[in-house]
Amino acid sequence: MDSPTPTSPYARVTVLGLGVLGAQIALQTAAHGVDVTAYDVDDDALRAGRERLERFAGAAARDLPDLADAYGAAPGRIRLTSDLADAVGAADLVVEAVPERLELKRDVWARVGAAAPPSAVLATNSSSLLPSAMADATGRPERFLALHFANRIWAQNTAEVMGHAGTDPAVADQVEVFAAAIGMEPIRLHREQPAYVLNSLLIPLLGAAAELLLKGVADVETIDRTWRTATGAPAGPFQVYDVVGLRTAHAIASADPASRAWADYLQENYLDRGRFGVESGEGFYTYR
Amino acid sequence: MDSPTPTSPYARVTVLGLGVLGAQIALQTAAHGVDVTAYDVDDDALRAGRERLERFAGAAARDLPDLADAYGAAPGRIRLTSDLADAVGAADLVVEAVPERLELKRDVWARVGAAAPPSAVLATNSSSLLPSAMADATGRPERFLALHFANRIWAQNTAEVMGHAGTDPAVADQVEVFAAAIGMEPIRLHREQPAYVLNSLLIPLLGAAAELLLKGVADVETIDRTWRTATGAPAGPFQVYDVVGLRTAHAIASADPASRAWADYLQENYLDRGRFGVESGEGFYTYR
Repeated sequence: MDSPTPTSPYARVTVLGLGVLGAQIALQTAAHGVDVTAYDVDDDALRAGRERLERFAGAAARDLPDLADAYGAAPGRIRLTSDLADAVGAADLVVEAVPERLELKRDVWARVGAAAPPSAVLATNSSSLLPSAMADATGRPERFLALHFANRIWAQNTAEVMGHAGTDPAVADQVEVFAAAIGMEPIRLHREQPAYVLNSLLIPLLGAAAELLLKGVADVETIDRTWRTATGAPAGPFQVYDVVGLRTAHAIASADPASRAWADYLQENYLDRGRFGVESGEGFYTYR
Repeated sequence: MDSPTPTSPYARVTVLGLGVLGAQIALQTAAHGVDVTAYDVDDDALRAGRERLERFAGAAARDLPDLADAYGAAPGRIRLTSDLADAVGAADLVVEAVPERLELKRDVWARVGAAAPPSAVLATNSSSLLPSAMADATGRPERFLALHFANRIWAQNTAEVMGHAGTDPAVADQVEVFAAAIGMEPIRLHREQPAYVLNSLLIPLLGAAAELLLKGVADVETIDRTWRTATGAPAGPFQVYDVVGLRTAHAIASADPASRAWADYLQENYLDRGRFGVESGEGFYTYR
């Protein structure tokens, strides 16, 4: 952003679910001075969430030394609760990051819609489900949209803002300002698109790289080097696969019968050998 | 390349065709100290080729100031001829960059095969035709392969080395050394692949960007910004379109019925208005 960071239009933000993305969203929001409440289902989930918050705070502080103090203090500023009505009762914005099951999300949104202030804006971080599939469950579809973050939110800082057909554009405008206020680069979509903008671009590139490898045209290092040399990008497609995580890549490939051979290749050569990419220290490349 | 630049295994290189790519290949080779002969069909074609050599030498010198002297001197070191037998009679390597018509290329290769020393290696720069489609015409298929360069060869310095099934791997190894010797990053393909490695990766990415734009999901600037922010690449897909050239993009889209809408969009909004990308000063963006 060339313009100065705006002030968050929401004073109190609630994050639902302290998994990998939920914890990162809560952390990023709290590190930018916004009051954050985080919800998960029970004490065990909250304990695991607390550990994730501390771990991601450490990673963010290492990656962004200038903001080390803000990230370091953020976990202690997040209120944790396993009471959903309590979590959202005073929220200006609710960001949902619960597991990717439509019925679960619809159930959560119905309960949030009943308990959150009528003025609250509601946003799903779903990667694979469209907001139109759950908008009616919220009871306030015009104040509901998708706000999609990527893993390692503090570094990979796109925030895709995607309404469904019934979202009030003024609400989407406001959510864009919120995203910028917590250090994100807002990406505005003008209509629903499965996989948003980023993954709509990335998935075909990664698929083409997989095909070249499976066909034996060139090896991993050569394909990556070609991409880096020709485009000036810092990482080739297989380096991106390692960052995305090979379990995620396998899940995406498994969902499409056309990429069955690639799913099998990943399973046999990587998943079955505990090679999950950067997260496990080994994938197409070895880390540390 | 981390390793020092190797010496060219070929002392005398002949380039066939002084169009955009042929002129750049001749220039790049001469600028790296190799004797170059360039052939085109008649005096008019040679005059136009000479102008291209001077123009590209100026562009390369501006882009790579450290090599300005070498590029500046290169055009004067290239011998020009419209006699094909004379052009290839003493060649160690012949690189063909004549128009992309199979029968023309086969005819040229038959004449080259008859006139070049038996030891000479023969390489096509074809973007769209596979070497297996013309290997037999050369009379020495084991010494024939594809060596593919990209536009603005001095900056965009991939050289894809792709044999057909009958190419001697030792010949491909040697051509890789030649590519490195003239400042290229050699990319070795282990089997024939239409579009090589680079375009096999690039075309799906560019196609996905076109689809997002046509569907009205996001605008050109937003799509490009998403890609740059998320991947760290210096250019988004529409910036790449402008560099590739919108006439080339239109030709590729026109060849596939599935991308008809994109071909029409480019025609109406860009080609019909004289907007060809960077080369015309205007495309998706305005230049200069």
